[in-house]
Amino acid sequence: MAYSPLLQHLLQALQCLPGVGARTSQRMAFYLLQRDRDGARNLANALTDAIENIGECERCRMLSEEPLCRLCASVDRDATVLCVVESPADVMAIEESGVFRGHYFVLHGRLSPLDGIGPEELRLQIFEERVAAAGVSEIILATSSTVEGEATSGYLASLAQSHGVRVSRIAHGVPIGGELEYVDRSTLSRAIAGRNSMNAE
Amino acid sequence: MAYSPLLQHLLQALQCLPGVGARTSQRMAFYLLQRDRDGARNLANALTDAIENIGECERCRMLSEEPLCRLCASVDRDATVLCVVESPADVMAIEESGVFRGHYFVLHGRLSPLDGIGPEELRLQIFEERVAAAGVSEIILATSSTVEGEATSGYLASLAQSHGVRVSRIAHGVPIGGELEYVDRSTLSRAIAGRNSMNAE
Repeated sequence: MAYSPLLQHLLQALQCLPGVGARTSQRMAFYLLQRDRDGARNLANALTDAIENIGECERCRMLSEEPLCRLCASVDRDATVLCVVESPADVMAIEESGVFRGHYFVLHGRLSPLDGIGPEELRLQIFEERVAAAGVSEIILATSSTVEGEATSGYLASLAQSHGVRVSRIAHGVPIGGELEYVDRSTLSRAIAGRNSMNAE
Repeated sequence: MAYSPLLQHLLQALQCLPGVGARTSQRMAFYLLQRDRDGARNLANALTDAIENIGECERCRMLSEEPLCRLCASVDRDATVLCVVESPADVMAIEESGVFRGHYFVLHGRLSPLDGIGPEELRLQIFEERVAAAGVSEIILATSSTVEGEATSGYLASLAQSHGVRVSRIAHGVPIGGELEYVDRSTLSRAIAGRNSMNAE
């Protein structure tokens, strides 16, 4: 094999990126070395900065380099409503929609007893402390609609109710703009079971 | 936008990678920060090492951290045959096939007068010096079969012939294992024009 040791190291290191295999890592390495060494230097610095400084927000567990993330530190947000999600990417997805102005709580996973992930592994005592503290009046559960996501949502709902806090679950149904014929069966059955009345009352 | 400044910087830096846009960079950043900080640290080091140390082999212009690349430094290779390619990735492709045991010369591009890339921009004087020096008896032109690749190959052929060196071009035709019906027209016309006699002689 004609790869030099440093090139070999770079090719292997690039494969830690999700979706990047042997072919793509080669394309990336040659591209960076031939055309964008400044970009590569910048990326190396950004990676080092990020892993050394980015931790979790102490209130909502979102990724943040400050003790409190921007959303928790903001005075414009409604601290009485708490939206619970599985991952930081979910926070970004909801923020992009622009409809939610409350606070978040990031679980970093979901309950999955078969994989040994219980309430302790998810550090749900942080969530319970947050709920028990005065100030939160409603919790919106936005965990995924997988089996584990539903189970997690059920567990969190009873936890919140035991503290007398209102709990809701995001709606499931047919996506806006989606053709009915391409929607899968379980989504359709949820959409029909959860139908909303249109009667004038 | 809820991205912290360091996260924002990481997202932008990741987009210097070919094929990585806003969505993919977010997936990569969250993945590295949540699940593979060691991998990210390793990648940052590999990038820094590579851009600081990898340059071009002084004989063949292949990427290498040594003045002479592994192939040029090897005593097992036939230095009398020189295969000319456009990029380091082409060297790797030919090496993987395992059929060539000579030396390479990497052009790092191809002649393209419309884009202002002439013999000087490709530093073809290095190629000419290599050909003029004693020792090279055959040159195999393996530039791409695009218009520019063909023009480059024509230019290099006359250059090599002026120094009295044998020149050949890699064969073009139907790929092995390819169904004839899926082969494009220009490949087929090259395959028919370049047909080889099977008569017993």
